[in-house]
Amino acid sequence: MDPVITDAQIGAAVAAEAEWMEDVLVRLVAAPTVLGQEEPGQRVMEQAFRDLGLAPYDLRLDAEAIRADPGSSPFSWDVSAKRNVLADWAAGGSGGRSLILNGHVDVVPPAAEALWTDPPFSPVRRGDWLYGRGAGDMKAGLVAMCGAVRALRRLDVAPRAPVWLQSVVEEECTGNGALQCVLSGPRADACVITEPHPDHITVAQVGVLWFHVDLRGAPAHAARASALGVNAIDAASSVTAALRGLEAELNVDPPPPYDAFEHPINLNPGRITGGDWTSTVAAECTVSYRLAMYPGDDPAALQRRVEAAVAEAAAADPFLSENPPVVRYDGFTCEGFSLQHTEPVAVALGGTYERVVGTPAPLLATTATTDARHFVRSGIPAVCFGPHGENIHGIDERVSLPSLTQTTHVLAAFIQDWCGLTA
Amino acid sequence: MDPVITDAQIGAAVAAEAEWMEDVLVRLVAAPTVLGQEEPGQRVMEQAFRDLGLAPYDLRLDAEAIRADPGSSPFSWDVSAKRNVLADWAAGGSGGRSLILNGHVDVVPPAAEALWTDPPFSPVRRGDWLYGRGAGDMKAGLVAMCGAVRALRRLDVAPRAPVWLQSVVEEECTGNGALQCVLSGPRADACVITEPHPDHITVAQVGVLWFHVDLRGAPAHAARASALGVNAIDAASSVTAALRGLEAELNVDPPPPYDAFEHPINLNPGRITGGDWTSTVAAECTVSYRLAMYPGDDPAALQRRVEAAVAEAAAADPFLSENPPVVRYDGFTCEGFSLQHTEPVAVALGGTYERVVGTPAPLLATTATTDARHFVRSGIPAVCFGPHGENIHGIDERVSLPSLTQTTHVLAAFIQDWCGLTA
Repeated sequence: MDPVITDAQIGAAVAAEAEWMEDVLVRLVAAPTVLGQEEPGQRVMEQAFRDLGLAPYDLRLDAEAIRADPGSSPFSWDVSAKRNVLADWAAGGSGGRSLILNGHVDVVPPAAEALWTDPPFSPVRRGDWLYGRGAGDMKAGLVAMCGAVRALRRLDVAPRAPVWLQSVVEEECTGNGALQCVLSGPRADACVITEPHPDHITVAQVGVLWFHVDLRGAPAHAARASALGVNAIDAASSVTAALRGLEAELNVDPPPPYDAFEHPINLNPGRITGGDWTSTVAAECTVSYRLAMYPGDDPAALQRRVEAAVAEAAAADPFLSENPPVVRYDGFTCEGFSLQHTEPVAVALGGTYERVVGTPAPLLATTATTDARHFVRSGIPAVCFGPHGENIHGIDERVSLPSLTQTTHVLAAFIQDWCGLTA
Repeated sequence: MDPVITDAQIGAAVAAEAEWMEDVLVRLVAAPTVLGQEEPGQRVMEQAFRDLGLAPYDLRLDAEAIRADPGSSPFSWDVSAKRNVLADWAAGGSGGRSLILNGHVDVVPPAAEALWTDPPFSPVRRGDWLYGRGAGDMKAGLVAMCGAVRALRRLDVAPRAPVWLQSVVEEECTGNGALQCVLSGPRADACVITEPHPDHITVAQVGVLWFHVDLRGAPAHAARASALGVNAIDAASSVTAALRGLEAELNVDPPPPYDAFEHPINLNPGRITGGDWTSTVAAECTVSYRLAMYPGDDPAALQRRVEAAVAEAAAADPFLSENPPVVRYDGFTCEGFSLQHTEPVAVALGGTYERVVGTPAPLLATTATTDARHFVRSGIPAVCFGPHGENIHGIDERVSLPSLTQTTHVLAAFIQDWCGLTA
């Protein structure tokens, strides 16, 4: 199909949306959409979709349907009030390929609010950067996909196959929001997730396991700790050490494409809580860990290795042998994937990027997981590409506004390349 | 002075109070008097003092006066609503020695509520035992001192020097309740604290330091933990390991009377909290530690050694060298003491015990601290002696009711021996 509009026209239309995009981004970042509090962000997305001239609609999370799917991750909390917000840009012609543009509205907590220069949910612009938790991961990505559609609609064109916009919840813990889209949302010829993966296209990702180890101790007065007590906080250190051993094993001889990484598989003790009194030997300690696995690895097999490592640590202590730590799974239990570099969506998006930006976009792997796995698993090829963010999950997270503009430009041009446009 | 009443008469009078005593104990244990929630327990004590025919009165905590005293421990919380409850049994004659009977109404938290056979603040009697948090440490001790006075008053006698009853707060964290008694309460010739030290009399105790280490990490996405992150939870393990080294040093060649213990100085990491998301490298972790010191050791000197150990652990890590852990002091900062075995109150109470019980009560040291230090420091010799408790600071804490009766008998007989009685 011949192009209906030029990249230059698209660039100008995106530039004209810069103010609207920044405004939406600021309102999104100001919504503290941590787990369980996604709704204010979804209301912003609803309005953003309306601003495109589209009719947003809800896709509510169905706990039963999610749990019944083998690709779901376990969760212990109530999701009955949660919704993804979707909007369809219907085909105005025929002969094109359909596309899902997907992003998540949930963000991780601030890590350490006191260390931020400005409060994490008070967006601040400094020069070319917009600061705030979630600015990069991935509210700018949500804005980019909206901006691309709005720019094209400003040019009075329509796609030759549907473009489906999806703002999902729970990417940061289970991916069950995106899974619900796969279960009951539209099918498409491809999906682009506008995660903050700039200047490259992500075609492979690790699997991730979240697990929580509940440790018991023998509480006693601290005055007699050595004689009577077994400290659950000390036991947690032993378990972490054993798991570090497993992590080291997993990083020996990584298979491609992970042989490009020095240390692809990361274990992270992300949360710990233990004990209830300074002078009482800690009776309980719980540590929450994140551990990755290679594409093709079975999450259940990694669970067995985790359990073996924990059991090995427990075996070294008579009390823990009798009172073994409990390993619970709550959150990510998901496999990785690796697309062929000939996958059409990757090739096409790479082509668009190179034409618009002037430099090639390599096809890369990530040591993280993303919602792309659900689409890939269901037969919808999915890649990640989005604005340049920094300090993701860190302090003073920020996103580059020029990168947001460029990403939006590439996405809009890609819609023409992939879906085709009609005047 | 010749005895006014016999030990047998006292024993019978104590036996007659058994039901009242158990009732008070049950009501005390049912009051969940953890830090900051002491008041319901103090109301029970107020009524108990009234039941003795005495007039209870308040001794409110004066934060400014406490902080101005070199024997106080630092505290970060509000004490303005806190009170000790006191009652004076005035002298009915002359020529005796005055006595303070002191106990604390505060208890430590349950350690792990789910592990208890019955809820920790639902007192349950099984055979000779009364179960519940604080039953042993030290609500039965409070009941024993009340029971002793009530038994004697039932016999229509009065002491030849005042007996001062004190129910104090904050023994488990600062001792500042007892300190307030020393600052503005009565002075006496001796003090007996009815801590659960059965079948012996405690004449020496360690000093205790509470300190809290705030660790920083470099938060990052867990996917890039090894490349970008420094995990504050891992750092906490390193700091604890360094402090275990200090603990080991402190246990080499203990001075008498602590050479009788295999491991007199105990370090306890009692509480830990760190991180805010499983897939974020932990930005913060705080560990609360308890560490003991020998009588004669300067708490300030131990603080310097703690800080050196923490700094040593930090020096091994480039990030922690630049972002050194902060050591905070909140709670116990107190010295130990060791009384002479010829101390009159110890000798006299030992004599009473041996006469009433039939076996000697050795004079021992404890690896814990108690409020006795404040009295000793102010020149009032103080010892600990009280009912037999088990699982202090542990699960299914319990106190022996026969031991409570026996302790009460010994205390009542000791009031006659120490203070003298008039008919």
